[in-house]
Amino acid sequence: MNHITQALPTDIALNNGHALDALRHVPALSACTEETLRALLQNAYLEELPKNRLFLIHGDKAENYFVVLKGWVKLFRETLDGAQAITDIVPKNCIFGETALFGDGTYSFSAETVDECVLMRLSIDTLRTRLEEDPALALAMLKNITNHSHQQEKELEHRTLQNAPQRIGCFLLRLLNPQTTEGSATLNLPYDKALLATRLGMQPETFSRALQRLKDENVLRITGAQIEISNIEQLSHYVCSACSASFPCKDL
Amino acid sequence: MNHITQALPTDIALNNGHALDALRHVPALSACTEETLRALLQNAYLEELPKNRLFLIHGDKAENYFVVLKGWVKLFRETLDGAQAITDIVPKNCIFGETALFGDGTYSFSAETVDECVLMRLSIDTLRTRLEEDPALALAMLKNITNHSHQQEKELEHRTLQNAPQRIGCFLLRLLNPQTTEGSATLNLPYDKALLATRLGMQPETFSRALQRLKDENVLRITGAQIEISNIEQLSHYVCSACSASFPCKDL
Repeated sequence: MNHITQALPTDIALNNGHALDALRHVPALSACTEETLRALLQNAYLEELPKNRLFLIHGDKAENYFVVLKGWVKLFRETLDGAQAITDIVPKNCIFGETALFGDGTYSFSAETVDECVLMRLSIDTLRTRLEEDPALALAMLKNITNHSHQQEKELEHRTLQNAPQRIGCFLLRLLNPQTTEGSATLNLPYDKALLATRLGMQPETFSRALQRLKDENVLRITGAQIEISNIEQLSHYVCSACSASFPCKDL
Repeated sequence: MNHITQALPTDIALNNGHALDALRHVPALSACTEETLRALLQNAYLEELPKNRLFLIHGDKAENYFVVLKGWVKLFRETLDGAQAITDIVPKNCIFGETALFGDGTYSFSAETVDECVLMRLSIDTLRTRLEEDPALALAMLKNITNHSHQQEKELEHRTLQNAPQRIGCFLLRLLNPQTTEGSATLNLPYDKALLATRLGMQPETFSRALQRLKDENVLRITGAQIEISNIEQLSHYVCSACSASFPCKDL
C-alpha cells in the first residue's frame, strides 16, 4: 500500500489544443468557457501508468484531481480486516478526486489503475481559485456531483431490492447504446469478472452462480469477455421490475 | 400515492428574524451571508404536516426545496412491484430537494413525514438565480452535496462489508455525542424499528435477529425505544473492524 508512482510526462504537449480538447470531452466540464478550461490547465500534466498501479492512498492530502484519458481507474477503500470495497470504476473522460476540495482536503479513497492508463493530473489549488470566481464552473460541478450522487442512490436501492442476476443484468443494460432498446445485442465486458463482482458488491461465488442462472435461462450467451443478450426487452422487464426507474434509464 | 397535502401556513412570520435564524442553523447554508439568506427566503413559506403525510411524488416537476424545522422526513422510491427503498431520513435543520435543480428538474424521490413536521418550503427558481450570482452559495452547496455523497459511499461500503449487527451498531454509534467515545451510554431510537430496518436496507426479520444477537452478547440492553450501549469501546471495535474509517467517525 505504500509505493506511489512517479509521474511520467508524455510527449503530448499540454499547452496545445489537445489538452483543451480532452477537457471539452469531460461531461463535468463541457459547459465551461475556453477561458475557464485554460485556467484549469495551469500546472496540469499528463502521466502514463501501467496496469494495477496504486497511485493514491485513502487519507493522503489531496493536491490533485484527475481526468481519465485512457483506461479505467478503480477507486476503493480497505478495512482494518483487509477487505476491499470499490467505490467506483472511473471510465475515460471522467474526473475523480475533485470532491476532496469540498471535504476535509484528503482523498476519501485509494486509486489503482485497472489497465494501462493515461491520466491528466490537475491542480486542486487552481480549481479552488477558479471556483471562487466562476459561478458557471461551480454549477457544472454541482451538476456532476449530483448526477454521481443519484447514481449512488440508485445503487443503494439495487443492493436492497434487486437480486444478484438482476444486478448483473442492470450493469449489462447500462453498457448498451441508449438507442438499443430491443432485439439482441453483443457487448464486451469492460473489465474482468472478478473486478465486476467486487464492483457490484458480490462475492465471486454469488456472481458466478447468478451469471450461470442467466445463461441457463437463455437470457445471456457468454464467450470469454463477450456477452450476447438474446432479448433486450425480456432482460429489461426482468431487471427493471425491481427498480424505481424504467428502461432505458435516464442516467445511462 | 396520489393525495398531496395542502400547504398550511403557520403563524410564524417568515419575514422576521425567525426564518433567518432557522436558515443559519442549516449546515448547508450556514456559511452564507445574510444577503444571500434573505434572497433565498423570497417566496418561502412554512407548512405544518401531520404524521405519515405523503407530500412529494417521485418524478414530479420540482418547484421547491425544503428545510426540516421539526420532525423527520422519509425520502423513498418505489418499484413497479411495490417494493420501497428509503434513500434518506432527513432530520431537523437539513435541506432536501435542492438537487433537482442540477438534475432533470424533477424530484428523484417521493417524500413522506415520519412524525408531525414543520417544513420551510423554498423556491428552486430563486435558488437558481442566486446561484448564478453568488459563488459562495455554490461552494456551500458543493460542500453539502459532497458530504452527502461521501455518506452514501460509506453506506454502500457497509452494505458490502458489514453484517447486520454491525450495521445496527454503526447506526447507534452515530447517534452518540461525538465526545462520548468510551464507557456506557443510553440513547433513544429517533424513529420506530420497522422504519429503521428499511433505512438500513434490511428485512424486518433480519433486523430483529441482528438486534437479538447484540442483546444476547450483552452489547445492548433494550427497553422500548430506549437502548443502552454497555461498552462503547467494545461496540466500536466490533463495528469499525469492518469499515474503512475508524471510530469516532469524521462524518458523524
